[in-house]
Amino acid sequence: MDLVKNDFIEFIKQRKSSRNFIYQKIGKETILNILECARWAPSGNNSQPWRVCVVIHPTVKRMLSELSEYGGIIEDAYVNLVIFLDLERGYDRVKDIQAIGAFMENILLGVHAEEDLGAVWIGEIIARKEEVNEIFKFSNDKFELMGVIAIGVVDEAREKTSEKERKRRLLDDFIDWY
Amino acid sequence: MDLVKNDFIEFIKQRKSSRNFIYQKIGKETILNILECARWAPSGNNSQPWRVCVVIHPTVKRMLSELSEYGGIIEDAYVNLVIFLDLERGYDRVKDIQAIGAFMENILLGVHAEEDLGAVWIGEIIARKEEVNEIFKFSNDKFELMGVIAIGVVDEAREKTSEKERKRRLLDDFIDWY
Repeated sequence: MDLVKNDFIEFIKQRKSSRNFIYQKIGKETILNILECARWAPSGNNSQPWRVCVVIHPTVKRMLSELSEYGGIIEDAYVNLVIFLDLERGYDRVKDIQAIGAFMENILLGVHAEEDLGAVWIGEIIARKEEVNEIFKFSNDKFELMGVIAIGVVDEAREKTSEKERKRRLLDDFIDWY
Repeated sequence: MDLVKNDFIEFIKQRKSSRNFIYQKIGKETILNILECARWAPSGNNSQPWRVCVVIHPTVKRMLSELSEYGGIIEDAYVNLVIFLDLERGYDRVKDIQAIGAFMENILLGVHAEEDLGAVWIGEIIARKEEVNEIFKFSNDKFELMGVIAIGVVDEAREKTSEKERKRRLLDDFIDWY
């Protein structure tokens, strides 16, 4: 493996949310590469309780965007990954949601590994999860919206990351040694 | 950044659970490097609702091991990271638990970036979360156990990864295009 420790720490630290995108196509192979990273996420009992709607079509994007305060970002992003918990595959609510968290983090890291691409995790839309299910004709008993990841070619000129958002608690603030 | 796309996909694919460890010290700096990866995990509203007890002391390890079916692994691991949700920092249960999932995945990837080290995520112990809280004198209103990550120098001779565990659903099985 070529990847060494310090590279990886830097890689993980440099990842940040991107909310401004240029309209530029992202190839299907790139989208599959990003999802390939997600596929290898860990899950309790290896249950892999995930489902993804890959939204590129403008009409579907529009419908989705109307259900979020961040609709503008959803519309600007070339692709939105709409992530669901597959309730029938899950077996323990806490562990299933953790698995989805790991899955979504792998997507963000997978995007970060692609030159020029950026992404933002939109969580607020889960307040409208039933309406999102209607778009995809998903039954509420079977699929529960876990979030949307908007992905696009970053418009560096418009991109500003707030200091607040980049701030992280110091290790000493949340670690105890035994 | 030296890290390129294909390296990263391979890196993520090669990560797997390790359950057999050699007794060998892991330096404090290495443990801090691993936690540094976790620190950069995303969380809703950047709430960072995590707390970690880093357990190295044999007595504390023993107490922890008695609360898990996988006590042998906990005892063999040089260090166990006991991960809690900080309930007062959290703001939305689903998003908080997703953040913890992302945090724990970053730990697993951080371990994977360290030569010779391996880890396993033990989720089953959350069934005994109140008893784990007693070890650390944590109030159940303030901290909720989210899992333990056992970390050690991998004993490759004893390590066997089941095919079942490495198996992942194919992309076509959980993706729809719109």
